[in-house]
Formats: sequence, structure tokens, C-alpha cells
Amino acid sequence: MVGIIMGSQSDLAIMEQASDFLKSLDIPYELTVVSAHRTPERMFDYAKSAKSRGLKVIIAGAGGAAHLPGMVASCTTLPVIGVPILSSNSIDGWDSVLSILQMPSGIPVATMALNGAMNAGILAAKILGTADEAISAKLEAYQNTLKDKVLGTVTEIKSKHPNGFDQ
Amino acid sequence: MVGIIMGSQSDLAIMEQASDFLKSLDIPYELTVVSAHRTPERMFDYAKSAKSRGLKVIIAGAGGAAHLPGMVASCTTLPVIGVPILSSNSIDGWDSVLSILQMPSGIPVATMALNGAMNAGILAAKILGTADEAISAKLEAYQNTLKDKVLGTVTEIKSKHPNGFDQ
Amino acid sequence: MVGIIMGSQSDLAIMEQASDFLKSLDIPYELTVVSAHRTPERMFDYAKSAKSRGLKVIIAGAGGAAHLPGMVASCTTLPVIGVPILSSNSIDGWDSVLSILQMPSGIPVATMALNGAMNAGILAAKILGTADEAISAKLEAYQNTLKDKVLGTVTEIKSKHPNGFDQ
Amino acid sequence: MVGIIMGSQSDLAIMEQASDFLKSLDIPYELTVVSAHRTPERMFDYAKSAKSRGLKVIIAGAGGAAHLPGMVASCTTLPVIGVPILSSNSIDGWDSVLSILQMPSGIPVATMALNGAMNAGILAAKILGTADEAISAKLEAYQNTLKDKVLGTVTEIKSKHPNGFDQ
Amino acid sequence: MVGIIMGSQSDLAIMEQASDFLKSLDIPYELTVVSAHRTPERMFDYAKSAKSRGLKVIIAGAGGAAHLPGMVASCTTLPVIGVPILSSNSIDGWDSVLSILQMPSGIPVATMALNGAMNAGILAAKILGTADEAISAKLEAYQNTLKDKVLGTVTEIKSKHPNGFDQ
Amino acid sequence: MVGIIMGSQSDLAIMEQASDFLKSLDIPYELTVVSAHRTPERMFDYAKSAKSRGLKVIIAGAGGAAHLPGMVASCTTLPVIGVPILSSNSIDGWDSVLSILQMPSGIPVATMALNGAMNAGILAAKILGTADEAISAKLEAYQNTLKDKVLGTVTEIKSKHPNGFDQ
Amino acid sequence: MVGIIMGSQSDLAIMEQASDFLKSLDIPYELTVVSAHRTPERMFDYAKSAKSRGLKVIIAGAGGAAHLPGMVASCTTLPVIGVPILSSNSIDGWDSVLSILQMPSGIPVATMALNGAMNAGILAAKILGTADEAISAKLEAYQNTLKDKVLGTVTEIKSKHPNGFDQ
Amino acid sequence: MVGIIMGSQSDLAIMEQASDFLKSLDIPYELTVVSAHRTPERMFDYAKSAKSRGLKVIIAGAGGAAHLPGMVASCTTLPVIGVPILSSNSIDGWDSVLSILQMPSGIPVATMALNGAMNAGILAAKILGTADEAISAKLEAYQNTLKDKVLGTVTEIKSKHPNGFDQ
Repeated sequence: MVGIIMGSQSDLAIMEQASDFLKSLDIPYELTVVSAHRTPERMFDYAKSAKSRGLKVIIAGAGGAAHLPGMVASCTTLPVIGVPILSSNSIDGWDSVLSILQMPSGIPVATMALNGAMNAGILAAKILGTADEAISAKLEAYQNTLKDKVLGTVTEIKSKHPNGFDQ
Repeated sequence: MVGIIMGSQSDLAIMEQASDFLKSLDIPYELTVVSAHRTPERMFDYAKSAKSRGLKVIIAGAGGAAHLPGMVASCTTLPVIGVPILSSNSIDGWDSVLSILQMPSGIPVATMALNGAMNAGILAAKILGTADEAISAKLEAYQNTLKDKVLGTVTEIKSKHPNGFDQ
Repeated sequence: MVGIIMGSQSDLAIMEQASDFLKSLDIPYELTVVSAHRTPERMFDYAKSAKSRGLKVIIAGAGGAAHLPGMVASCTTLPVIGVPILSSNSIDGWDSVLSILQMPSGIPVATMALNGAMNAGILAAKILGTADEAISAKLEAYQNTLKDKVLGTVTEIKSKHPNGFDQ
Repeated sequence: MVGIIMGSQSDLAIMEQASDFLKSLDIPYELTVVSAHRTPERMFDYAKSAKSRGLKVIIAGAGGAAHLPGMVASCTTLPVIGVPILSSNSIDGWDSVLSILQMPSGIPVATMALNGAMNAGILAAKILGTADEAISAKLEAYQNTLKDKVLGTVTEIKSKHPNGFDQ
Repeated sequence: MVGIIMGSQSDLAIMEQASDFLKSLDIPYELTVVSAHRTPERMFDYAKSAKSRGLKVIIAGAGGAAHLPGMVASCTTLPVIGVPILSSNSIDGWDSVLSILQMPSGIPVATMALNGAMNAGILAAKILGTADEAISAKLEAYQNTLKDKVLGTVTEIKSKHPNGFDQ
Repeated sequence: MVGIIMGSQSDLAIMEQASDFLKSLDIPYELTVVSAHRTPERMFDYAKSAKSRGLKVIIAGAGGAAHLPGMVASCTTLPVIGVPILSSNSIDGWDSVLSILQMPSGIPVATMALNGAMNAGILAAKILGTADEAISAKLEAYQNTLKDKVLGTVTEIKSKHPNGFDQ
Repeated sequence: MVGIIMGSQSDLAIMEQASDFLKSLDIPYELTVVSAHRTPERMFDYAKSAKSRGLKVIIAGAGGAAHLPGMVASCTTLPVIGVPILSSNSIDGWDSVLSILQMPSGIPVATMALNGAMNAGILAAKILGTADEAISAKLEAYQNTLKDKVLGTVTEIKSKHPNGFDQ
Repeated sequence: MVGIIMGSQSDLAIMEQASDFLKSLDIPYELTVVSAHRTPERMFDYAKSAKSRGLKVIIAGAGGAAHLPGMVASCTTLPVIGVPILSSNSIDGWDSVLSILQMPSGIPVATMALNGAMNAGILAAKILGTADEAISAKLEAYQNTLKDKVLGTVTEIKSKHPNGFDQ
């Protein structure tokens, strides 16, 4: 249901944070490399066939002059989530952030934080959850685990700083 | 089905680009002002009741230290689309862009370009379209009108630069 | 008298510079983790009860899209000091600086330098010192130690560069 | 009780937002021009005599290479609030923001948003309010007026977008 | 011999600086609108047929998330010159500059200054001049006119500042 | 046919990416150090004699206040390709990027990405290829190897994420 | 004694702030246009002959990729003062600031603030004043007028804010 | 003849590049630590007595919110050279660069590149050289050594890339 693509194999470690999250919620995905600049026809084919192949959401990660998310969005009516990746020779990530974020009117890309592939997976689940109560319930459970993790650290810190709020 | 909120009435002219688009596709929406900083309880109530009131997607626009989209996202499992607004005394828009975009792991906000409310409306429709073929078809028609507008300018320019590609 | 909170346990090493300073001046404090995005209710409770629990000043540190200081400030009349933290995946700290600094009119946050938790502790003492001569006297003593440390380095450098100003 | 100073007469229109706020809360203030670079002795005298003259808080606004807030802070134990001003020939305000914000360890300046003199006035009141319940109560009333203004715009917008949250 | 394309009709006034220069050197060109995002197929056709239609150089101008120059470069072996355009809602031009400049290894785009369409025309002529002495001679004459214009202003200024270098 | 120059020996490792590419395509080149600031006469001689010595394209790499590419361009009608280099004490590369990119009207420099010497070599070949079919054919072959490398990683990733697009 | 040069006639209004200051101190100067990119030989001649023609200091102003100050500094042992100018199509002045400021080791340029030609004139006088007591005395008088102007505004503001420091 | 000061002992390794250069030219200097923020009186005394103690030029280095160079310049008619230092917790050096560079009209600071202490030493020598032919001659010799070093690398590189310009 979710297609995860990236511009280069060097983005894989980051982008697997998206697939790992989807797996943890039992949401089917596919993951592959599609380069806007080195395999433009493959990119077009991927984007144009995405809906008919059953995909509902596309997650696209890329670094530098990151054209992959925007170009895919221009060839499909599916929602596209863009993940700017901090690649080597990037100018501190500004290039990938701005070339994904600043899409012209008509072709939106749902842009995540720099290296925010985990959040891309969560957003994809939220999108699917708009029409699927089971996914929506799993997301609620997930948000509760986030809260529980914070509360766990509260307990830990209290032993060191005993006058805190939560005594 | 879509909730459109903004931090201040001064954001209205920009944010109505979202509601105008939804209206053009006959997608029901509600639009109001919810300030994270001046009406925090109202923001919490809005975010927490959004799903049970029938909303599927929330669009939140804000300028400067723009906390509204991220805070709403922290209180709901619905997908939240954030629109950074170039407000007066903003530092060229960087403040609103970064405070919407750079959300921590666990709480995604689908960030649009600076002042990109139109694209927020389109993305909301794309999200709804993942489970609604009628909306999806309207989006395909819309993308064709974008193409037709470009082709219209091609004809116009050709009269001035007659040796062009499209003769 | 001073509440020190942070968005994540990973901010602890930085934020303890604030509690260490307060401890050195015998100013009571509490220190805990409160996440705006993962525990929004806890954040609201913290901010709303802060004054009635006897706090006079709140120090809040956070990284990335750092909403904690501003959101806490929106729920209390206590002065709030914000510490932008350079977290991993931050864009060089600009995101945390701008999302704490650029608060809208009506809801100030006293913003410190990037990672400036030490200064947050000092500012909290300065605020308490406006109504407490003992604290004010300790701050004056502290500022003298800063001066003495500089003068100590002057002596040290003089042995290497003997023609200096202070012979 | 509050000293408001600025580096140049051209900052007056902005800085009077601070004095106007204090006036509205009946908090006594003084307001004058003190230039770090053109009248350095005057700046030193101002900072060193501030406490003995009865001031509790100093608000200092400056543009460009804005040294006034930090230099004043180095000569007093009073809390100093810095207001970066967007002056002509500033590089988009970055110069004044960074030269006020990035103070070294030991000498904090409570930095406000670009042109955030209004918030400087509010923060000064919050600081005084830590030891003065009357001021604290006025601040609570003020925060309620902020809320009421937002709710007023809600009603206004509802007439144009009738399906909104607040019907 | 030179194809000039742009992402939107609003770029026309800037991009005609390129065609005007080529016209002044009697170098044939074609000029049209090709949008990477709104007419992706047209862009692919343009880029892929460019060489067989006799083009030697392509000049592509675009604003915001400017994908046109890089995508065209990925579909042709012709040299592609990119012109970042300062469009409305651009973040000071950084978005178009970085999304054209920071191309990955393998697919170069010869990037010009912001709004530097005039220089794009000159560079296209320089490229053609590597194999065409007549064009090369015209460029030398053009560089001399630049020099003469400067020397003209020297004379003008001398009347006002009579002690200058060139008396 | 291609002259490769750089401002300092410390740029050599980067700039040899350009010469290595040209070598792989059997395009003759020369490579040397020419410093705009330390050997200005040498720079002038190099630029002015370049065409008569048979060069067709010049590649110039420099870091910091990188004046070499622009100054060389001002002394020749040959196309000049500029490579901004991330040197030590650079401000994240912005200095070299902007001082190469933002050339005034009349004197273009074909600017590459930060450290983009490889792409400079490719662009030089593309320029020569406009009048040399053999080079053009080699470039087409090269672009195919880029594609093949991507497709190779696709196969590799498929074994780990078996539900991907390319099964 | 002071040579003032600029890259383009459009810089004249700014650069005359330098000559006006020198005139007010009866310091002889010459002022002309020298373009690094359009008249490189003229620039070399100017820089190399500067000392023998009796100049002691050179002030060079330029915008965009501003190579003039650094290139002049590479051809003379005279101190060179650089004035970054905010020209049209500049990226907010960052290009001219960085290409003047970030000179490599060995070739310093004394960089002024953006559009800081007035300060360039003052610095030139300070340099001459190191060996000329008359100039040094005039500078002291000038610094006193700066102080007097500030004190004048103090009086003016006191009438409006009567409780100020200077009553 | 040259006073070298810095805000903190941690700046010493950088700032000794200035004293080393002066020593190599037999120019007397003094070097010490003067903190604008921790020892403001010492800074005032230093700046005000500098001229009467026989100094001709002051070099001041500082990091972060770097007020030392500008404050010293406000208290003397001597030329002041400012060295922005990349300190820990600096935001990539932008803070020190901008708070030294962007001085208001009336109080110039001759700003060097980030960490450019070596160039500060050279500029100080150039300033002294305007009235001292012996120093001026040494600077000319120094500039020749820079050239010779470049030519040395040319020979070295030629052995690896034998077809270069200098054979």
C-alpha cells in the first residue's frame, strides 16, 4: 500500500526507518531505488503506474538537489511524502530541504524534517488511517508508547534530581 | 471532512486558498482561527475532538514561531498539514518554515512551501482521494487543467518567438 | 523556586548546567522531562500549576522544532526562559533558535544562546535577585569570579608574551 | 522600575511598544537613548548606576552589530532584556539577532524576537510579577484579553465560513 | 541552435534577456514554456528530442523548487545552463539557487547567478564559440563594449571628482 | 583541450575528479595551480593565452573568497566552469559558492555544486561534444553506466525488501 | 592619499559617503570606476601603480561576486578597505559580504559592513592618523560630534518620556 | 606598536598567528586577554590608554556575540582590526562574523575572515607600512614568498600531470 523510493542506495539506512515503522504496524510496503536524474524513465514509470499497482501513498527520499519527490508528485494523484536527506557535499541539508519543500502551486509534496524518514512512515500510516480504523487504532497505541517512554525517563531523572514536579 | 485553522486572522487571505480549492472540488471543510499561544485550551479541544467530529485531515497555517501545526499533530492521529506563513517581523519566513518542518521523530507534520496554502488544499484532497475515487478523478482533471494552462502560454509566447519547439 | 524542564532526556547533560548553577547559589529548583509533542497534557498541567506550586521562573530547553518554551509561556504568567538545544538532525541549530526566539506579540520567551543552559540558570537567579538582595549579592560575587578567571589567564599568557599591557 | 534604552533615536517607534505596555499596567519606567558605540561612558554609567537608582529590569534595543544589551548586562546584576531591531543596512536582521542572542557563558541577555519590543515590556512585567501579585494579576487579565481578541475574530470569520468548529 | 525554456510564463521577462543577447549575435534560438511539474511529458519530449532537432545548448530557467534544469540535463547529453529565478514566495531565491546548483555527480547543470539569464545567453554563445570562430570574434567584440561602457562612466565621474586616477 | 586550474594544492584531490573523468574519455587536458591572489600575473597570463594555446574550456576550482573562476572568465572568451571548494575556515561553503555563482552581467561562470569537480569534467566534455560526435557518443555511454549502477542497487535491495516495484 | 574605486557607476551614491567624509577632514582622495571583471587590465594597472602614485590607502566597493577589493589587495602592499554593496539581484548582500570578507591567508581585505562606505572613509583616516597627529585630532573631534548627536536626541526624547535617566 | 587582544584564552592558538607574523617582520607587539563581557573596565582602560601607550593599531579577536572589537573601536581613534573566531556553540561562525562586521556608521572595525588572525597581522603591518618604508619592503618580500610557494606546488604537480601549462 505504501511505496518507498530513494534516489540512491546511500539513503537506505535512513529510509528503512520508514519501512521499519510500517512493518511494525503490519502495513504492506515496497521499497526500491529510483533516481530522478540517473533513471528518469524508471521514475516516470514508477510514478505513473503507482496507483494502478495498488499504492495509496508514496514516500520519496533524496539529498542535494532533491528532485525525486516533486517529480513523482507531478506524475500521480497519490499523496507524496518527501524526505530531505543530509548527503555528503550537501550544504548542511539546506539544498535537499528547499528543493523538496518549495514546490510550486498545484503540485504539493508533504515535506518531512531533515532525515525524517521515521515520520514519513508515520504520516503514511496516518493517511491510510483516515479510511482504516484498525490502522488509526494502532497509531493511537503508538502515540501512547511515546508518552510512556517520556514518563519512563521522568522516573529515571527523579532519582538524580529528587525535588522535581512528579514526586 | 477537512479542518482549516490558522493562528491569526491576518493569515486568512492566504489560508482561503486552501478552502477555495476544496470548495471547487465540493469537499466539505470548516475554517476558523485557533491560536496555539493565545488560546491554548481551544487548540487542545480542537485537536482532540477533531476525529470524533468527523474530520479526516487538518490544515494548520501559522507564522513566526509557528507551533500550531506541530501541537495539533501531537493531540490527534489525523494527518496534519502545516503551512508556514510569511508574517510581518518574520525573518524572511525561515522561522515559520523551520518551526513547522523540523518536528521530532514520532509527530510528523506534512509541511508545505512558504505561503503554500493552495497546495495544502490539494494535498488534503489527495489524502481523501486515497479512499474516494470521485475525489481522485477530480484531482486528475485538475492536474490536466494545470497542463492546459501551460500549453496556453506556449501558444501565446509562440507569436512573439516564432521559431520555438511547438510550431 | 525554579522549574527546569526539557523536551527529551538527551537534553539532560546541557540542562544540568542550569541546575548546577542554581545549586551553587543555594536556589531551590526542580528538574524533569516534559515533552510538548509526546506528553502535551503533562506540559499543560506543568505550566498551569507552576505558579500555584510555588515556582517563580521556568527554564525550558528543547531542540529542533522547539515548541516547549513557547507553549509553556502561553499557559502561565511566570517568566519563561528558553534554551535552544543543538540536537541531532537539527539544521545547525537554526530550527531550535528560531522556533523559540520568534514568539508572537503577547507571549514572550527569554531566549538564550544555543546550548546556553548555564546562562539560563544565571538569568533565573537575576530575576529572583530583583526581589532578593541575598541572591543579588551572590550574583555580584559570581561576576567577580568571572573577572578573576580572566585576570588569571592574563598572568599565564604574560609569561609567554612578555611585552603585554599588564606588565 | 524598568529602564528602557536604545542605541539610536531611529529605534524609538519600535521601543515605545515596550513603554506603552508598561504604562498600560501602571509600571513606572524611564526611556532614553544610550549608544554603546557613540557614548560608551554614558552606557557604563547607565548600567552601573541602574540598580542603585532603583531599576529592577533593563530593556535594551539595538540594530546591526547590536552590542548595547550585552555590554549593559556585563555591568550589572539586573536582568537585561535585549530587543534586536531591524535597522536599515541590516542583513535581514540576522546581525542584530545573533549579536544579542549568542552571549558567552556568564552574561545572559533575555533575547526577544526581531522588533519584539512589545514582548520585552511584557517580560519585564512578568519578572516584576514574580514578587508583586498585583502585577501578576494584571498580566493574567492581559492574557485573557489576548484570548478574547482571538475569539472575536472567530465570530467574524464564522459569518463567512459558516460550517466552522464554533457554531 | 539554442533552446531557451522556462517553467512559467512569469519567468519570460527575465529569460528574454538570454534570447535578446543571442539575437544580437545572430545566433538562432527557440524559446518556449516547459514546466517540469505541470507538463512532465512535454519536458521529457523536449529534452530527449533536443539534440536530434539540432539544438546544441539548452538554457532552462525556473524558480522555487526549480527542477526543470536538472531534469532536462538528465535526459540529454547537451550542455544545460540553469537560471535560478527569484519568484514570488521564494525564500529570497535560495530555493531556486540550491535546487539548480547542487546536482548530484553525473548530471551537471551550468548554474548562473540569480536572475542571470543574460549571462546564460552569453555562456551559450561561448559554448558555441568553442567550435565557431565567428561567434568567438563577436564575443570578443562584446567584451570590449563592456570595457568601453566602464571607461565612459570613468569620464563622467571625473567631472565631479576631478582628482581621480585617469586625469 | 581542457585547462584545469585550482587556487591551491589543497584543492588537488577534489579537482582530480575532473581530470580523471576527462582521461576516461580520452580528452586531453592540462592541470596546474594558478592562484588569483598569490600569483595574479600568472592568472592573467594563463587566461589570456588559453585560447591561443588551443584550450577550448577552462575548469577553475577555488575555496573561500573564490575569485579565480570569475577573474579568468573576465580575460577570455572561452567558457569557464567554476567549482566551489569547501576549504578549511570556509563558512560551510557559502563563501566559495556565492563568490563563484553571483557573477555580474556580462561575465558568466558555469557554476557547479560544492566540490562538484566530477561534474565540471562532465560539463567540459558536454561542451566539447557539441561539435564532436565521438565525445557525444561517449557521454551517452557514460549516462547509461549511471543508469546501470542504479539498476544494480535495485537488485541488491530487492533481496532484502522482496515486495518492491521491480519483482 | 586615498584611492576610492568601485566596480560600477551604480555604486557611486554609496561610495561618495567615503569621499564626503575624507573631504570633511581635508584628506585628498581620488575617486573612479574600476571593474575587476569588465576592465581587468585597468584594475591591475590601478593596483600596481597605486603606491608609486602616492596613495597610502585604497577603498574598493563592489556588489555581487565582489572580486575587486581582493584582487586589488593581491597586487599592492597598501592596505585595502572593502565595502560590500547591496546591488540588485544580490542574494540579500551575502554574496558581496562573503566574497570580500573570506580572503585566504596572505591577502587581507579590511571589510566593512554592508553599504558601509562611510566607515571605509573613517577607517582610511584612522590609518593615515597613525602617522599624522592632525588627522588623529580631527578624528577625535569627529567622535565627539557623534556623542553630541546622541545627547541631542536624549534631550528631545526626555520631553516625551519625562521620567528618564537624564533628568 | 601593535596591541593584540582576545576575549578568551581559548582564542590564543588562533590569535598567535597574528603575533607570529609580526614577530617575523620584527614589529613589536603586546598580546593579552581582555574580555568585553567579563572585564568591561579593563577593556575600557585598554582602549582608552592604547594610543598614549604608543600603540598604532589594535587587533581584537572574539567569538560568539563578539563585542570586543567594536567596543574597543568606540573608545579610541586607532584603527581596530577584528578577527571573528569560530568558538564552540557558535552557530557556524555567523554570530562572530556579523557582530564584528556590521558596525554602525561612525565606528569602523576592519573585519577579517573567520579565524583570519594571520591576515590581521599582515593588515597591521600594511597599516604601519603606510608610513614606514622598511616594513613596506618586508611586505613586498613576503608577498613574493607567497608567489614562490605557489610556483613550488606547480612544479610538484607537473610531475603527476605532465601536460600542464608550465612545461
